[in-house]
Amino acid sequence: MTSIAGHVPLLATTRGRTVECVHYGTIAVCDRDGDLLAGVGDIQALNFARSALKPLQALPFVEDAGPARYGFGSHEVALMCASHSGEPVHVRIVQRMLARIKAREGDLQCGSHPPLYYSATGTPVPPQAHFGALHHNCSGKHAGFLAYCRLYGHRLGDYLAPESALQVRIRNTVQHFAGNHPIEAGTDGCSAPNYALPLVRLAQTYAQLASADGAALAALRFAMLRHPDLVSGTGRIDLALAQTGGGDWIAKAGADGVQAIGIRSRGLGIAVRIADGNARALHIVTTEVLHRLGLLAKPAESPLARTFRPLLTNYRGLTVGSLLPLFELSKSS
Amino acid sequence: MTSIAGHVPLLATTRGRTVECVHYGTIAVCDRDGDLLAGVGDIQALNFARSALKPLQALPFVEDAGPARYGFGSHEVALMCASHSGEPVHVRIVQRMLARIKAREGDLQCGSHPPLYYSATGTPVPPQAHFGALHHNCSGKHAGFLAYCRLYGHRLGDYLAPESALQVRIRNTVQHFAGNHPIEAGTDGCSAPNYALPLVRLAQTYAQLASADGAALAALRFAMLRHPDLVSGTGRIDLALAQTGGGDWIAKAGADGVQAIGIRSRGLGIAVRIADGNARALHIVTTEVLHRLGLLAKPAESPLARTFRPLLTNYRGLTVGSLLPLFELSKSS
Repeated sequence: MTSIAGHVPLLATTRGRTVECVHYGTIAVCDRDGDLLAGVGDIQALNFARSALKPLQALPFVEDAGPARYGFGSHEVALMCASHSGEPVHVRIVQRMLARIKAREGDLQCGSHPPLYYSATGTPVPPQAHFGALHHNCSGKHAGFLAYCRLYGHRLGDYLAPESALQVRIRNTVQHFAGNHPIEAGTDGCSAPNYALPLVRLAQTYAQLASADGAALAALRFAMLRHPDLVSGTGRIDLALAQTGGGDWIAKAGADGVQAIGIRSRGLGIAVRIADGNARALHIVTTEVLHRLGLLAKPAESPLARTFRPLLTNYRGLTVGSLLPLFELSKSS
Repeated sequence: MTSIAGHVPLLATTRGRTVECVHYGTIAVCDRDGDLLAGVGDIQALNFARSALKPLQALPFVEDAGPARYGFGSHEVALMCASHSGEPVHVRIVQRMLARIKAREGDLQCGSHPPLYYSATGTPVPPQAHFGALHHNCSGKHAGFLAYCRLYGHRLGDYLAPESALQVRIRNTVQHFAGNHPIEAGTDGCSAPNYALPLVRLAQTYAQLASADGAALAALRFAMLRHPDLVSGTGRIDLALAQTGGGDWIAKAGADGVQAIGIRSRGLGIAVRIADGNARALHIVTTEVLHRLGLLAKPAESPLARTFRPLLTNYRGLTVGSLLPLFELSKSS
């Protein structure tokens, strides 16, 4: 078993004048060469990228001109990188991808869950609704995996096996972006292999995704910048980040407390990890990091207003405390 | 602002052979004199008791023979100590309490939220349902507050004011149980004053509640031991703990990661705090503590089986990791 990362207190909730909850975590901000602009906590410790890995999981197919082979445009590439909300537009595009590669919903091995749309918008899940693999937030990634197998004539049924040609290729891709640092493997919520890499390497990956040369990275960048509504969905933090960035920020969250952002105009990558996986803490810390980097001109008027230094309110709407960032952004961690 | 408590890693989730999430917190186990049996983290640091404070908030009314004055039996006293699930039986008893003291639902200042029953059982909230203050998990506590005001002829409208006779009495009660350690005040989710006290004092409070002499504590103990289904509700952790204890354990959770348990037969009190408030982590750590104290003979066959060293599974039910306790129970913290 690997050791426990050196997370540090990033955010507290206060009640009255007393600290109540504490969220620990790590923050890395670097340029595309990996030169550190700010680090909080142990930025070299391994953290699973979870869904923030999706652009790298799509990269082999894009590098090998798969999109042109199957008529995938930027919509389909965005879905390959998406943790989508299972809204009708998301489902339709994944259906189209499957049709183009002559595969079926039953070939997707991601499992199923109620579309993220419901929790993201506070809409009750309709009691009689049926949801299948197409609605899983990773169905576009899995459709892309199947497309890679079609491209090379591999058996569709083995596409998640760590020793399959596709997954070996992805692992090598991740290892490349992790530099010479060892990575560790695990199985994601959608059953795909996933990898833990140093948090600073995840930040560097997004700096490169946002600003590096190369046709494949540029195609991923175009799709993610152009279609943030396809990469995430209504009411989701990645959509709010993309809207705030106005076409300059590539934002991708991962389960259990991961947020990665690439800032194209500055050639910067940001990675935030909340050790306990708490989403509210992740969103508030991320917004605070962007503010301290001077990237939020008017945070209270931006799509991120809800996650900028919010107050803590109770069932009657009374203010009972605050959410208090505890970190300083500096090069020393 | 008070300082951040010295929480330590209590529970990790693993994915493959790599630690992913880390939950920090503090554990205190002591007898009714406050003599420490085990401590993990800074057991002297202040932690809000939240709903684990309810027995102390009910104590003044019980000490002053309020139940006899208004015909409250053990059902009503249990509701005064409850974070109930808003099930029909809970609502009916609170309605009866209000009728006995000639008060109305509109006098309750707790606010409202959908009954905990729905989230605890995974039942969708009916779209057209209306929920009022009676359904709030604290409505029994608030009805008890109103009853105290009736007993002394105080204005009902002021019952939550920190300077009101009732709330001053409660604060003095909490200060008594906290010994000579300073306490801090805050406003709870239900708008009542709440207090942060050293975690070891919360453990000691439950040791006393479970086993100390005195008519008022005995009345609270009887009600909580006899009616755990009224103190919590279907599918809730406090009910599972009470069922496992078989009439020997008083269990009371509090929001944002608090669990207190009194073990009558051993004169022991246990208090667990998860710094980030995560409920799953709280339940697993609590079950592990009980097991290590030798209180769980056959954990896998007990009502706590679901929270005893569970594996981590994904959307397809595949085992992808585990939940790994990181602490050792010892006197040194």
